[in-house]
Amino acid sequence: MNITEIINKKKHGSSLTDDEIYYVITNYISGEVTDYHMSALAMAIFFQGMDDKETATLTNVMAQSGDQLDLSEFGNLTVDKHSTGGVGDKTSLIVAPIVASLGAKVAKMSGRGLGHTGGTIDKLESIPGYNTSLDFESFLDTVRTTGIALVGSSKNLAPADKKLYALRDVTATVDSLPLIASSVMSKKIAAGAKNIVIDVKCGSGAFMKTADDAVKLAKTVVSIGKMCGRNISAMITDMDTPLGYAIGNSLEVFEAIDILKGKGPEDLKKICIKLSSEMLSLVFGGDWEERVIKSLDSGNALDTFYTWIKAQGGQLEKMCCNAEHHYEIVAQTDGFISSMNAELIGKAAMILGAGRTKVTDSIDHSAGIILKRKTGDFLSKGDVIAELITNKRNTLKHAEIAFNEAFQISDHYQSDKKLIYDIIR
Amino acid sequence: MNITEIINKKKHGSSLTDDEIYYVITNYISGEVTDYHMSALAMAIFFQGMDDKETATLTNVMAQSGDQLDLSEFGNLTVDKHSTGGVGDKTSLIVAPIVASLGAKVAKMSGRGLGHTGGTIDKLESIPGYNTSLDFESFLDTVRTTGIALVGSSKNLAPADKKLYALRDVTATVDSLPLIASSVMSKKIAAGAKNIVIDVKCGSGAFMKTADDAVKLAKTVVSIGKMCGRNISAMITDMDTPLGYAIGNSLEVFEAIDILKGKGPEDLKKICIKLSSEMLSLVFGGDWEERVIKSLDSGNALDTFYTWIKAQGGQLEKMCCNAEHHYEIVAQTDGFISSMNAELIGKAAMILGAGRTKVTDSIDHSAGIILKRKTGDFLSKGDVIAELITNKRNTLKHAEIAFNEAFQISDHYQSDKKLIYDIIR
Repeated sequence: MNITEIINKKKHGSSLTDDEIYYVITNYISGEVTDYHMSALAMAIFFQGMDDKETATLTNVMAQSGDQLDLSEFGNLTVDKHSTGGVGDKTSLIVAPIVASLGAKVAKMSGRGLGHTGGTIDKLESIPGYNTSLDFESFLDTVRTTGIALVGSSKNLAPADKKLYALRDVTATVDSLPLIASSVMSKKIAAGAKNIVIDVKCGSGAFMKTADDAVKLAKTVVSIGKMCGRNISAMITDMDTPLGYAIGNSLEVFEAIDILKGKGPEDLKKICIKLSSEMLSLVFGGDWEERVIKSLDSGNALDTFYTWIKAQGGQLEKMCCNAEHHYEIVAQTDGFISSMNAELIGKAAMILGAGRTKVTDSIDHSAGIILKRKTGDFLSKGDVIAELITNKRNTLKHAEIAFNEAFQISDHYQSDKKLIYDIIR
Repeated sequence: MNITEIINKKKHGSSLTDDEIYYVITNYISGEVTDYHMSALAMAIFFQGMDDKETATLTNVMAQSGDQLDLSEFGNLTVDKHSTGGVGDKTSLIVAPIVASLGAKVAKMSGRGLGHTGGTIDKLESIPGYNTSLDFESFLDTVRTTGIALVGSSKNLAPADKKLYALRDVTATVDSLPLIASSVMSKKIAAGAKNIVIDVKCGSGAFMKTADDAVKLAKTVVSIGKMCGRNISAMITDMDTPLGYAIGNSLEVFEAIDILKGKGPEDLKKICIKLSSEMLSLVFGGDWEERVIKSLDSGNALDTFYTWIKAQGGQLEKMCCNAEHHYEIVAQTDGFISSMNAELIGKAAMILGAGRTKVTDSIDHSAGIILKRKTGDFLSKGDVIAELITNKRNTLKHAEIAFNEAFQISDHYQSDKKLIYDIIR
């Protein structure tokens, strides 16, 4: 087998065999297939695509390139949830305790945020004492006792994907559907859960800007998840507007707790109920929506949340609620908010200190944005639209400019936006 | 400027600016643009193409990446000829003395053969004593006194092209028309001639398999040559069948001398007359075919050939005419030769020792094939089709198998083949 011939084959639109994909990835890890071979192949894949069988094979081979979590002691009860990335998306903090309170097991690894998108591990690290790097035995033990453990990704989880993703990032080959799908799924497959729900975000703040693209990705991940032997479904949810009102790490933890207390924004609550029901339905079958609402109303989910956070060392009572500087964005005219660009709002939050421009940046867990109004709301001149929160005063002006670019005021508004577009099973 | 953004731009089908192309190539040479960026960009170019302006800029930037020959002392008299590569193509050895005998100046660099295609420098090195690496002053001096100097390519001629070509070779990005055109032309532009004729070969033994592709390449090289300030034309000539009867280095030198003596195969003679006329027409204007034929008939071209070879140290009288082992391929049935695949015949010659599979291989200058019949000829059972010649007896069987795959016998033959398809000016 020869890498140049394999690149040529894909360049001309043929499907690669299992053996060829195995050859490429194992030799890429060992260094015999170089970065320049791999970037040419990735670009050929961008143009020619890969069918679901190729994508599933690539997923499996990348999953097998490093550690694979053995969660077999939990049988079929394990369930994972992955979001393709958004702004204000704190759903993992809410759905994990909901489904655990109803008997599922969440043994989960999450990532950090980058650019305008947040990451679950950053949010959890805003809780003083929370340990995001348990050893494997403690990780399993926490699942055994609380039904949940949520840690940062192991360094050796799907290392082939890490190496390939870093290369795609600098060679303009990120936006290939089969490469996105295999990257997401290789980590999920290695992470060991039997049941997986993928939340494919769609809109201005998401990687997938259109519903069509999001549906394609959803269908692909579901297809390859099944080929890899998992129960899987994908929800396509809106990310044109940030989810909920809070953007920024500790701010989002507080909003998650609000939802678990039966309060909080309706859009976030609705998505969390749908996601939890879907997760439980994969594990146990049947319709779970009523039982999910009951778990929220009864406080069971909230209790499970407290138990889990405490088990991983988190001291919620010590959370710092407020950064030093607050600044209110005020409406300059009357009118409806006709759009609110989630990506630009995520960037404004990043400027305030809530996110990173590069992986090595540190973040300010208390910085961020609290939206007071969202798309479709009517504003009178002088109404507060949002509050910018930071410890670095000199970021306010820059963040205000970014925020002001993010929304548009119009004298009428007719919504045709859905919150949940589709569920692919 | 940022290489990832430039790759992305080309990936989405936009034209690159002069500044962007300059940025890419200068940083590729310095190493800041890496091989993995460049192979991704080359693959994007394979799919999205480059317009003639981009291709001309790339050509110029690559030409300027190393030595550029200053032939200004010869004014507008310098003329170069380049073939895109074929089997049995010894035209340079013939057209150089023809045009020099008529007042043009040929200060030329040529390459070595690889795979099934031959190279002019290998053919010249079959002449004992011939010096293919003159220093620049001796090179100019030989042109001054004989009208011709023909040496191997300088190591520092278009080094950006050398680096990029080596990368394309292992990343399946060779067969991109703008990359082929800029590779050919960057070396020709750096080599300094004011007038250039490109012989675009077309058919089974050529890089361009179809006339359509050959015409496209011809139009592109002519367009970018003009943009780079040269007089240029391109002839599209047949390479479905080997050119002439001799394939192999010293065998081809003898056949070239036959043509200069007014003998030799008609197809080769015809192409050489056309090429020479075109070259002279670029230099001086007007129609040169009659004067070219006169130079051949009078022996002036032959005299110029002898003077040139002697000036570069070649001792024709010491040429070894014969390798040790000869083997005749004999017709097994009656019939017409309906096709004769030049690539497979080139490979058979390579097996006998006349060519290289990789650049570091050594070759046997006296090995090769003498065709006795060509496409369209009628054979009676027992007629000799070709003679295989080698110093390595154990290659004969393997070469015979390769040769036998190269031709087809049929009970009728109707030729629709042209020798010269078109001239693009």
